[in-house]
Amino acid sequence: MIRSGETICAPATALGGAIAVVRVSGSESLGICEKIFFPADKNIKLTDQKGFTILFGEIRDGKEIVDEVLLSVFRSPHSYTGENAAEISCHASPYIVKKIMELLIKNGAVTANPGEFTQRAFINGKIDLSQAEAVADVISSTTQAAHKIAVNQMRGGFSEEIGRLRFELLNFASLIELELDFGEEDVEFADRNDLKSIIVKVKDLADRLTNSFSLGNVVKNGIPVVIIGKPNSGKSTLLNALLNEDKAIVSDIPGTTRDTIEDTITIDGLAYRFIDTAGLRDTADVIESMGIKKTHEKISQASVILLIDEISDSPESINMRIGAIREMTKESEKKLIIIINKCDKSQHGQKEGLVDAIILKEDENLLFISAKEKSGLEELRLTLAEVIVKEKLDSNDVIITNIRHYEALLHVSESLDRVLTGLDNQIPEDLIAIDIRQAIHYLGEITGQITSDEILGNIFKNFCIGK
Amino acid sequence: MIRSGETICAPATALGGAIAVVRVSGSESLGICEKIFFPADKNIKLTDQKGFTILFGEIRDGKEIVDEVLLSVFRSPHSYTGENAAEISCHASPYIVKKIMELLIKNGAVTANPGEFTQRAFINGKIDLSQAEAVADVISSTTQAAHKIAVNQMRGGFSEEIGRLRFELLNFASLIELELDFGEEDVEFADRNDLKSIIVKVKDLADRLTNSFSLGNVVKNGIPVVIIGKPNSGKSTLLNALLNEDKAIVSDIPGTTRDTIEDTITIDGLAYRFIDTAGLRDTADVIESMGIKKTHEKISQASVILLIDEISDSPESINMRIGAIREMTKESEKKLIIIINKCDKSQHGQKEGLVDAIILKEDENLLFISAKEKSGLEELRLTLAEVIVKEKLDSNDVIITNIRHYEALLHVSESLDRVLTGLDNQIPEDLIAIDIRQAIHYLGEITGQITSDEILGNIFKNFCIGK
Repeated sequence: MIRSGETICAPATALGGAIAVVRVSGSESLGICEKIFFPADKNIKLTDQKGFTILFGEIRDGKEIVDEVLLSVFRSPHSYTGENAAEISCHASPYIVKKIMELLIKNGAVTANPGEFTQRAFINGKIDLSQAEAVADVISSTTQAAHKIAVNQMRGGFSEEIGRLRFELLNFASLIELELDFGEEDVEFADRNDLKSIIVKVKDLADRLTNSFSLGNVVKNGIPVVIIGKPNSGKSTLLNALLNEDKAIVSDIPGTTRDTIEDTITIDGLAYRFIDTAGLRDTADVIESMGIKKTHEKISQASVILLIDEISDSPESINMRIGAIREMTKESEKKLIIIINKCDKSQHGQKEGLVDAIILKEDENLLFISAKEKSGLEELRLTLAEVIVKEKLDSNDVIITNIRHYEALLHVSESLDRVLTGLDNQIPEDLIAIDIRQAIHYLGEITGQITSDEILGNIFKNFCIGK
Repeated sequence: MIRSGETICAPATALGGAIAVVRVSGSESLGICEKIFFPADKNIKLTDQKGFTILFGEIRDGKEIVDEVLLSVFRSPHSYTGENAAEISCHASPYIVKKIMELLIKNGAVTANPGEFTQRAFINGKIDLSQAEAVADVISSTTQAAHKIAVNQMRGGFSEEIGRLRFELLNFASLIELELDFGEEDVEFADRNDLKSIIVKVKDLADRLTNSFSLGNVVKNGIPVVIIGKPNSGKSTLLNALLNEDKAIVSDIPGTTRDTIEDTITIDGLAYRFIDTAGLRDTADVIESMGIKKTHEKISQASVILLIDEISDSPESINMRIGAIREMTKESEKKLIIIINKCDKSQHGQKEGLVDAIILKEDENLLFISAKEKSGLEELRLTLAEVIVKEKLDSNDVIITNIRHYEALLHVSESLDRVLTGLDNQIPEDLIAIDIRQAIHYLGEITGQITSDEILGNIFKNFCIGK
């Protein structure tokens, strides 16, 4: 799985656009490039070039000129991977990219696996494992909040603190194991109070991080929202109004497209992801055909429920629907927003009647809108924005988003729990030592001191080619 | 329309992939970048950097770190545009690209129009207009042949020869106009034999280039192929077999995708574009519902007609269909390939019977295949490859692909025709001078010595953003 001798190459940019970049990394990078790249200045020898310089020249296949390119030179260890590396910036034609890849391979390079450049950066000690994982998150982040968390982690984030605490734990583990070597002699090298204090510190960190996961998860993947309502209550009109408004804002900035994040809106740097709206956009009668079981399923996946009713509906029928949803969501922390639509057709006293008749619970909201005339949408956006307490995000506290980290930290916390109980109950040292070792193991898995080909394989297979 | 004082910026890569590149060009490029880019080495000052060097550092928005990036520095005149320029290579997150664009704009850059970088390269004399146009062709080329023609043109192609001949014509035009100044004195500064010889030379070039246009056009856009046949004769099976085979070949090379060139196959570096196959792939009964008029329309757009019949069809019915197509295509140069499908069900003597019964005209082919069992496809591919005489492409003769050039060259040829007739018939010098001036004008339009905002606008609006 892990190879390091070969020189790898891959296109690092998507198809399309004006320019494309082909990346090469490995000890033979420059030697291989020299066989296909001819500098415009004939006196220049590529393999003599310093790192962090750019050459202009031609890629040639024999006599045929493939393209005029810029070639960036990087010298080990001052490159992304830590190896000698080159980046060929060519015209973004699929034919040219394919041809350059073919030429590199013909001259000794091999096609990079997904994430292999970043894997090499990890193997060569340029970054730790949690930083490597954050690179993929940085690339895929589409919102400010997700981006902020990912960049924090890529730049070190919690790994330094984890590394330090792991080191202290290691020290104590060694001391306790030394005690065990002395067997019956009843010596105590490791100060029990100091040990307890460091255990508490690590466990606190682990708990704080695991607690941040649910927040991190919705930030990374978008806050799941479901739209529920009877047929023709205006669900798809509302969704389209929200999406179009958001698209209009985004498309102000050239070079961005919303194709990949369809049915997601961004409010205040956070993504709100509408669940299973494909059908909803085709037909207004989804809920009817869906039945109560499907509705239940959708609601179970959501953090926010938008219940759409109409201004002409009777208070009784609205209260009945609210009751049904409360029944489905009880004991789970879900935000219910009751939206009374079609207020453009509102008659005298109707609004007031509904306000009086609908008794809201804490954390529920009642909004009056007209999806058709796009009124009340701003208030809806504000209400959605309140779902996540923004202070948590702005506090600069570390937030974890990665389920692998989450699971490892849960294990750390459990192991340390056993250590603390053990210390209080004078459990034999050898058992305590085992639990400490386990905590150390899981901490090491996060940053990659402890790793296996399998773990690495799982992590990097989800990367894109060229990174 | 044309601006040059501003510093422009644009994403130069498509969304997706591992890295993205944002381009900046204009006198203030480095000054603007310096406000948002902070080199890792704090002793480095961006605006002091030499061209063709790379800096590693952070893009920051105030205190917030947007990304870790590589910044390539280019110094006027040694850049693509001829201006000071920078390329920011960041992680390919839509959020990051958007944020970097926002920061550049906030600090004084403006969003580049499509093709504006290349337009500036033209305005600043780095390339002529036909080279600028070729840049867009290079980027969009998907086949070897189209790529070769585009790269040739981008690298100067015919513009040097056109420029030289235009210069000679200019000299003669000046001499003749000088003669006119002397009015009645009957002096002859311009040697009529020399003039005639240069006119013939330019006209030959113009004719040679206009003649290459139909070839250039099909190379650039793909050779149009139509599949015609009665219902259930296996048209869609054949198309899918050809497409899938081609896709399998292409997808061997990582980083390429065929999404954008659906229903186009590549044989021997040339694209064959199947006309109006959308319906064909959905249903086998297109031709029936289409009727004779639509068939006629499709055939009129095609260079190659694939007529699909079945091995079990009677020779009479096949000959009838061949006759109908010959009737539709007479007096046009179209290649007819008669394909007898379902040969897996062929019975003794059927093939021979058809070979005897079908009398082919010159340049027609008769092939026996089984689309279902994928037999005979290789012969079909070879027959398709013969449609274009490859020698023409390999001869290194200049081939034009641009309708603007084609039209200008037609005008050149017409004007020079009038000059030659004029010289033979002793037409007054002032009329001859007008025609020479016209030829000079149109030659200048090709390379851009003569231009207008309107022409430039038309050319560059078809470019992608970031080029």
